[in-house]
Amino acid sequence: MSFRATILTLYPEMFPGHLGSSLAGKAMERGQWSLDTVQIRDFTTDKHRTVDDTPAGGGAGMVLKPDVLARAIDHASENDHRPRLLMSPRGKPLTQKRVRELADGDGVIIVCGRFEGVDQRVIDGRDLEEVSIGDYILSGGEPAALILLDAIVRILPGVMGNDLSGLHESFESGLLEHPHYTRPQIWEGREIPAILTSGNHAAIAKWQREQAEQLTRERRPDLLDEPPTKQLR
Amino acid sequence: MSFRATILTLYPEMFPGHLGSSLAGKAMERGQWSLDTVQIRDFTTDKHRTVDDTPAGGGAGMVLKPDVLARAIDHASENDHRPRLLMSPRGKPLTQKRVRELADGDGVIIVCGRFEGVDQRVIDGRDLEEVSIGDYILSGGEPAALILLDAIVRILPGVMGNDLSGLHESFESGLLEHPHYTRPQIWEGREIPAILTSGNHAAIAKWQREQAEQLTRERRPDLLDEPPTKQLR
Repeated sequence: MSFRATILTLYPEMFPGHLGSSLAGKAMERGQWSLDTVQIRDFTTDKHRTVDDTPAGGGAGMVLKPDVLARAIDHASENDHRPRLLMSPRGKPLTQKRVRELADGDGVIIVCGRFEGVDQRVIDGRDLEEVSIGDYILSGGEPAALILLDAIVRILPGVMGNDLSGLHESFESGLLEHPHYTRPQIWEGREIPAILTSGNHAAIAKWQREQAEQLTRERRPDLLDEPPTKQLR
Repeated sequence: MSFRATILTLYPEMFPGHLGSSLAGKAMERGQWSLDTVQIRDFTTDKHRTVDDTPAGGGAGMVLKPDVLARAIDHASENDHRPRLLMSPRGKPLTQKRVRELADGDGVIIVCGRFEGVDQRVIDGRDLEEVSIGDYILSGGEPAALILLDAIVRILPGVMGNDLSGLHESFESGLLEHPHYTRPQIWEGREIPAILTSGNHAAIAKWQREQAEQLTRERRPDLLDEPPTKQLR
């Protein structure tokens, strides 16, 4: 059974976005995964098709109405046990581990937030898993959903070549990648480190490991502070 | 002068992606920002138009050739002092602070990596700033570039309404957002917390602050561990 993604959004025209191109787009054409969108506005009941309202307690921005969003979620998840995610800067940071878990399942239902936020009662009442792709602010949940799907789709069986398996494993060591080099041997006076062309595989592996550790210490000491099972938050 | 983004990629068809829709697309039509792509393959010199080669020292995957990529970068940055970024999981994690700095400038040149990686000598020789949008693996640098641009474009002057200013400031407190509620007062038996409809603005602000602190302690204690100026890594 192929992986099914359903996106709840006010901007269905944003999908499939870049996922319609390149390997993800070809995999979609082959039926290895599918994407459908649900327009949240279709679940309004008033003549103005109102999806949002002012926040209780005052303040800037608008809040997505719980009743409208719940109807859209119930429509999308009828007879359906796919995880329900809400893309949100308040969410748990996305990790490669969670990406793998989701890719191993049947699919996902993704709610894209807009405005100031989503009524907390629908998050609680529909058991939405809040997911953040990083500590920066986007125009809405849609671009975040595209990132989550990109990460999932590339590891679905048969989507990408075997070329990337090495990269995958390397990142999962919990360290940043060591530097890479390729021909020419000398470029603008800069040489490939001699060790890499020595043919001594043990020495090369040791050098690459040391480089990865040094880079991680310099750039991401937070990855080293954590126990191995939690290295990739 | 409007913000100019130049993307170096092997997949120019992935752009503008979702940024062609919604508010970002309208802002582009109004000339408030522009996006152009440079096909890296156009800077090859062999008849096979080779952009990559096997990694020095062996291993899986392919590495982008330094000579080809450097020619593409030099073409894009002639008489041009825009920052040159390389989207990479090895990079410094993107923060809202860096987004703001970039949005305050003339534009960006973004190199999208593919394959196993990019030859380290071109990263050093062309002074590329490696930026990561999160600890997960994407199909390439292209989706990451779309996220960076989404975050930048939404804060360019005149692109979005004033609605979002509240959200912006709230996130910048270094805490996750407090829960939001809107009408109806009771939904599926769940009530809006009474304090929010009390009209007592001081009590509401205190409650929201406490909620934000509690949520941050539960979900992102890492944000609280850091000094205020570094809270949003």
